[in-house]
Amino acid sequence: MPLSTKRKENYSKWYNELVVKADLAEISGVRGCMIVKPYGFSIWEKMQEILDKMFKNTGHKNVYFPLFIPKSYFSKESNYIDGFSKECAIVTHYRLKKSEKEGIRVDPQSKLEEELIVRPTSEPIVWESYRRWIQSYRDLPILLNQWANVVRWEMRTRLFLRTSEFLWQEGHTAHDSRSEAITETEKMIEIYTAFSEKFMAIPVIQGYKTPLERFVGAKQTYCIEAMMQDGKSLQVGTSHFLGQNLSKALDVKFTDNFGNTDYVWATSWGTSTRLLGAMIMTHSDDHGLILPPKIAPIQLVIIPAYINKMQLDTIEKVVLPIKRSLEKQGISVKYDNRERYNWGWKLNEYEVKGIPLRIVVGQKEIENREVELFRRDTMEKKMLPQKGIVNSISELLEEIQKNMLQKALIQRNYLITEVDNYDDFKEILNKKGGFLSAFWDGSVETEEKIKKETTASIRCIPFNSLTEKGLCIYSGKPSFQRVFFAKSY
Amino acid sequence: MPLSTKRKENYSKWYNELVVKADLAEISGVRGCMIVKPYGFSIWEKMQEILDKMFKNTGHKNVYFPLFIPKSYFSKESNYIDGFSKECAIVTHYRLKKSEKEGIRVDPQSKLEEELIVRPTSEPIVWESYRRWIQSYRDLPILLNQWANVVRWEMRTRLFLRTSEFLWQEGHTAHDSRSEAITETEKMIEIYTAFSEKFMAIPVIQGYKTPLERFVGAKQTYCIEAMMQDGKSLQVGTSHFLGQNLSKALDVKFTDNFGNTDYVWATSWGTSTRLLGAMIMTHSDDHGLILPPKIAPIQLVIIPAYINKMQLDTIEKVVLPIKRSLEKQGISVKYDNRERYNWGWKLNEYEVKGIPLRIVVGQKEIENREVELFRRDTMEKKMLPQKGIVNSISELLEEIQKNMLQKALIQRNYLITEVDNYDDFKEILNKKGGFLSAFWDGSVETEEKIKKETTASIRCIPFNSLTEKGLCIYSGKPSFQRVFFAKSY
Repeated sequence: MPLSTKRKENYSKWYNELVVKADLAEISGVRGCMIVKPYGFSIWEKMQEILDKMFKNTGHKNVYFPLFIPKSYFSKESNYIDGFSKECAIVTHYRLKKSEKEGIRVDPQSKLEEELIVRPTSEPIVWESYRRWIQSYRDLPILLNQWANVVRWEMRTRLFLRTSEFLWQEGHTAHDSRSEAITETEKMIEIYTAFSEKFMAIPVIQGYKTPLERFVGAKQTYCIEAMMQDGKSLQVGTSHFLGQNLSKALDVKFTDNFGNTDYVWATSWGTSTRLLGAMIMTHSDDHGLILPPKIAPIQLVIIPAYINKMQLDTIEKVVLPIKRSLEKQGISVKYDNRERYNWGWKLNEYEVKGIPLRIVVGQKEIENREVELFRRDTMEKKMLPQKGIVNSISELLEEIQKNMLQKALIQRNYLITEVDNYDDFKEILNKKGGFLSAFWDGSVETEEKIKKETTASIRCIPFNSLTEKGLCIYSGKPSFQRVFFAKSY
Repeated sequence: MPLSTKRKENYSKWYNELVVKADLAEISGVRGCMIVKPYGFSIWEKMQEILDKMFKNTGHKNVYFPLFIPKSYFSKESNYIDGFSKECAIVTHYRLKKSEKEGIRVDPQSKLEEELIVRPTSEPIVWESYRRWIQSYRDLPILLNQWANVVRWEMRTRLFLRTSEFLWQEGHTAHDSRSEAITETEKMIEIYTAFSEKFMAIPVIQGYKTPLERFVGAKQTYCIEAMMQDGKSLQVGTSHFLGQNLSKALDVKFTDNFGNTDYVWATSWGTSTRLLGAMIMTHSDDHGLILPPKIAPIQLVIIPAYINKMQLDTIEKVVLPIKRSLEKQGISVKYDNRERYNWGWKLNEYEVKGIPLRIVVGQKEIENREVELFRRDTMEKKMLPQKGIVNSISELLEEIQKNMLQKALIQRNYLITEVDNYDDFKEILNKKGGFLSAFWDGSVETEEKIKKETTASIRCIPFNSLTEKGLCIYSGKPSFQRVFFAKSY
């Protein structure tokens, strides 16, 4: 029972169908906002748990700053007005009144003296506090993170990828030197990379953003870009070296141990529920979601096949001890002996939801001391002896994790094409998509023109790209490095 | 180095000083909103972790609903307008513009067709979804919880206790029968009670709210009330049996297994960062915070007393293995060998922050194979042999946890007074405070009059109170049960 839409027919429709059928999230009645349903949220919790541990192991602490930012805070760093506050949710009043005509209306008497912006990001309010908290180098570094909801008004929304409200984490750090801040920025992009590849099984390209694509107020934006199955790129994490831009705008200074004062060095970094969207689009197939074992809230489902209570009893004598042994090994198991669902519906549910492994045990399996094992990533079925099953399952989960990254890597690498002239660029972009590795003259003009003509943007200047002489595919001017272009989400 | 304000001098000033000096939270520049600082947030995380496990163990799943609720959703259940939407944050626009005069202003062109309310609670939006999700009894029960920020506009704020934005969890469940919904309501108040007493060491009174004090739209509100050191009561958790009020207002029906349709039965329950305030006010003293070991993010701090590197090396050979052994037992230890702080400042920091145990090891302790142990709850110092220290510490942490609950219980019980006439009521309320157990005639009029005249409200009708005949202390009318009055936060 595959999804009714196939990826090849309509990728976007397939994605929406999958998100709903796998019960991950749905559109709410509130403009551009999503409801993350229990199954989707349990995946997000798993992601949070792992990332949070990585942050804490590198010395970061969690904190909570207010949801609202007074309008005037945005005026201090003019970049923020352009970058964020244009499309945002603005609180202007604080009281409703019953009214005979309208039922309920905003009380005009309750107008706020200063409007409050629902945070699109928290730099302005975090750094207002940092100014109060930082006097000397002894107060540094400050390494904070917060898990929060943020709002950026979006006209065209897509579940997980682009919604007016989304969940994310935002790190905000303050340092007494440029080099320490750069080290932090790099450390965090490495953490995001490790998380994406080792846990989410999403291979990523690490690189710098061009000045045009940089985060507002950043001196340098480091990013990781993932390639979706439809040939579009998706930015899954960014880490920004903000230099002294913020501290100068907000006047945040520190005294060093020689008594000199200087502006504080800043970074910020974030990743969001988008990453969940990236995972869906990297791994899933026409049957539904495929979850990497390290992220799957349920790694294995055990289903007894029985027609009466006596059969069920016999089966449970075998499968319940197996379940307990697996759980002792830290494997998360769901046991599903529900009667009321029909068989096909039941099996399909776990396929759509992407549970990595499924075990079915019936009379025949009991007799043969076997289990019927189904592996979601390859859709293979095979018999497995009950003896040594805990080891077999542990190994299989490892193998699936590796296989999913490998498969995604092959697909991603297939979608990187070197192009050396603009005609090829346009043809491959439209026929095949993916990353186009091409020479660029380094100018904003060229970048903007290519974007306007093809909708492809420079996703990143890869960290590991070689210095190589060539000519810009658009202007013909000399270039010293290939950059990655792509259409993107 | 105790706090500069003593509890007896000015309890409220003492509380504010403690919250700031222990680095738990601070007032932000944003009206009525707080910043929860890393140490305060780590306590909240610990509380979340325990509660979340308790919710999940009883079959609840986490979910995320939108921050914004369209104004019209509030009109459907008229109680909500009175109860919540009066004082709330209202989003009316979605774009800012640069303006030469004002720098930055709200774009009048971006006015929303329908205003959005920043959630003061989520019933209206949750039940909009439940209407879509529920058709038959097979879809029930729905047992969901969400950890979220909520906003209720407050004119007078106090850190943790009353802020315009606060963090909480809200459970929303749907059932096919009245009795199952009542069982759920009771189960959750039991969970809150167990959490408060076993983990937070806060003794609570379980009871029902009077109709006047009930949650909007609730048929019955179950609550737990804690008594603060200053004789004021603080509600730390509530669980509401909502009956069919919500489902009738929003038309949420289900078909039972005989094909009959009926309205769905609802509960909701919540606890918030207030509970952290309750913990501070239950346990702390003039030296600062005292944390129950089961909630303390750091249970033990180890401080080496040294004057040179050689001494430190000798001490570390002893204390670092102790640290590792303690951590293996699941005890969270901080090792503080910072040089740059002076000794008194260092010791005081951990006292103010309420770390349950502190160990100091210097030359003398090394020679005597002892450690100097300081116990925060009793402020006692004693020498402890290094041999068997892991067991000693484990036992001490258990003992502190018990002792804190016991101490709080004695204090709380001292603050319960039976009164049988209104003169005694007023005198004891003003001189001693605490819970006044008194006969009430059951009328809203009497309740309101007493509240107006004394500021004391009925905190709860205790679950376990005996049927007892008496006369209402205010009206002299017959009464069959004592209720608990108190001034409250």
